[in-house]
Amino acid sequence: MSDNANIYLVCGEDPLCPVGDWVHRQLHENPRVKVVSVDALMRSFNELPLSPAILLIQAGDALTQCLPQFARWMQRWPSLQMLLFGPVSASDLEAFYGQGGCDLVPAALSHTDGLSSYWQAKLDTFERQAKVGRQKKQATRKLQAMAASLLAVEEDQALGASVQKMLMPEAALNLKGLTVAHDIRPSLMLTGDFIQYSSIRAHEVLFCLADVSGHGTGSALVTVLLNEQVERLVLMAAADSSLSVGRMMAQINEALCEAVFDHHVTCVLGIIDLRNNQLRYCSAGHFPHPLLVQNGAVQVLEAGELPLGLLKSKEYDAVQLALAPEFKLLIMSDGVLQGLRGEALAEKEATLKAFALGDSGEVEGLLERLFEVSDDGLADDASVLSLVRKVGYDR
Amino acid sequence: MSDNANIYLVCGEDPLCPVGDWVHRQLHENPRVKVVSVDALMRSFNELPLSPAILLIQAGDALTQCLPQFARWMQRWPSLQMLLFGPVSASDLEAFYGQGGCDLVPAALSHTDGLSSYWQAKLDTFERQAKVGRQKKQATRKLQAMAASLLAVEEDQALGASVQKMLMPEAALNLKGLTVAHDIRPSLMLTGDFIQYSSIRAHEVLFCLADVSGHGTGSALVTVLLNEQVERLVLMAAADSSLSVGRMMAQINEALCEAVFDHHVTCVLGIIDLRNNQLRYCSAGHFPHPLLVQNGAVQVLEAGELPLGLLKSKEYDAVQLALAPEFKLLIMSDGVLQGLRGEALAEKEATLKAFALGDSGEVEGLLERLFEVSDDGLADDASVLSLVRKVGYDR
Repeated sequence: MSDNANIYLVCGEDPLCPVGDWVHRQLHENPRVKVVSVDALMRSFNELPLSPAILLIQAGDALTQCLPQFARWMQRWPSLQMLLFGPVSASDLEAFYGQGGCDLVPAALSHTDGLSSYWQAKLDTFERQAKVGRQKKQATRKLQAMAASLLAVEEDQALGASVQKMLMPEAALNLKGLTVAHDIRPSLMLTGDFIQYSSIRAHEVLFCLADVSGHGTGSALVTVLLNEQVERLVLMAAADSSLSVGRMMAQINEALCEAVFDHHVTCVLGIIDLRNNQLRYCSAGHFPHPLLVQNGAVQVLEAGELPLGLLKSKEYDAVQLALAPEFKLLIMSDGVLQGLRGEALAEKEATLKAFALGDSGEVEGLLERLFEVSDDGLADDASVLSLVRKVGYDR
Repeated sequence: MSDNANIYLVCGEDPLCPVGDWVHRQLHENPRVKVVSVDALMRSFNELPLSPAILLIQAGDALTQCLPQFARWMQRWPSLQMLLFGPVSASDLEAFYGQGGCDLVPAALSHTDGLSSYWQAKLDTFERQAKVGRQKKQATRKLQAMAASLLAVEEDQALGASVQKMLMPEAALNLKGLTVAHDIRPSLMLTGDFIQYSSIRAHEVLFCLADVSGHGTGSALVTVLLNEQVERLVLMAAADSSLSVGRMMAQINEALCEAVFDHHVTCVLGIIDLRNNQLRYCSAGHFPHPLLVQNGAVQVLEAGELPLGLLKSKEYDAVQLALAPEFKLLIMSDGVLQGLRGEALAEKEATLKAFALGDSGEVEGLLERLFEVSDDGLADDASVLSLVRKVGYDR
């Protein structure tokens, strides 16, 4: 008999019937069995040290007194079984079952010595149910503790994400018909994708999209360094129009190589000159390649060199391109590729090209138009930097 | 009768006894009740669409065939109740209970029309138990999902923490009998406390302890910026011995004021000159004040000015102090104060002073000697920077 089961033999003032007598004789030596009056039971029920397994209730007065308590008892102890013994009237039996009573102890038991398997079965049932109940409680407790832990780290991450957001442009940049805007979807809350853009002269815009290896908090720390560099370059480029895009990229590379971090970074850095309709850009191992759409065609800007943070002496060359009066330039992080349907890379690149050609380039909802973000979220940060120029703006 | 309960009336080849007949008549119109042969039941048991609530088994052949399955059925459906009906022998009853049977349908029922409360009680019991079982399953499922989420963010945090660790000195610095070492205990995995030290000349050490407002990931991002500044200052100070500590502090302040972050930072920055036995230090609103122990006395270095990142034009003044040949300088973040026992701040400061005077200053285990870290962890990051000089070193 299990240690944490309790059987209460609940007697009224009537003498025990043969069944009760037999039960009493059979069970009373077991320390887990207590013979109690209804009054004693009601008084102590809320302070029972163990879950009661079985209430074995004598038919007659005891039953009448106990019946109104059944619902409360069952609510308190969902695994409790109420059994009835003794000569019972049909209406008593109906009331007993009606209130949730479990079982009438078969009269046959009183004539069957050693039928302890009956009680064992009852206790086994109780144990089985009580175990499920304990497991439920335990799981619920763990769940609460874990939810608190999760909340704490998520709050921390959310705070971190809001701090990181300060690194990126707050709003789209509009200059002479050019709209520069971005969208970043971190796979976790913080991101290793970094985007910055700023006008460096009345007709020139500097832009940068960088993808730190890895993702999440570790990579996010590196974006602080990137931001420092790009902010400095914006000031330098504004002051010195002869500073080349390749030289700027080399400077970011040097800073990353000197930094303590061991992340490498792919990066597209460029300047758009709206007076001369020129694009100067440089890619440090970035993939997918930027896509330039103009004159009804899409051009893959394939220039690519070593990622940043690997070789300090590396020099970077910029490419110069003529821009049409209207154009779209889309630069994405490789997390976008992972979000695209299709197996082969060539297939995904073709999808991107077709998308770039057909899409407005409007950053709002751009990633949704490109792919369906699954419920599991993204495997890697997905970012897009969109530079779209339309004619007919107010010169 | 609940929608997701099933009662199976399991008959053998014998004709139904009066109880079975009554049960059949009473229940057979309910779509949740199925009359099945033992064979049919055994065949379909594993594919039942709903949890069976009650198996109502006819005594005799049906019981004999079902008995060996009881254990398996109960394991599969912990809330299942096996009931027995019909004329039953004492040995059948014993076997029935012995295998986990629940209840012999009272013969009285066959004579009591409308005693549906018996079945309702059985189904209520089942529902009560099944509900607990469902709750347990649900909690377990949620627990698994949450554990996976927690693991993901914790892994991310651990990665972030390992990246942040690269910002701080890897090992203690030893110079002419001076040992500079540190310990940081983040309250979360990443920290807003920042410590850096480096020799800037053969006889000079620059040190810095900074505490970014807040803690965790958001503050950790700011420490990247601090590191950039301090690394630059180390180079500048090495190249220019006339660069004052106050000027250096002002430079960090300017950088923080220019940065996009809206955190402020308290900071102690100093240089120890081991040739002239001089300490030049500056505090930007840092608390607790650094403690200098020499000649058997402890001195509270109370100089303190505006925290960094608040006012760009702020100038900072350094204090110059003569150092004894042997000294201990302990600088702590305010998270240490929160870890100390005692209510009043004065009490905690007194504790710190007494500790500084008596302790070796050895950084290993220093925080443990100072206070007992509770199981709940720290409310704020607790850090210590220890600078201890002993004579008798190998000059």
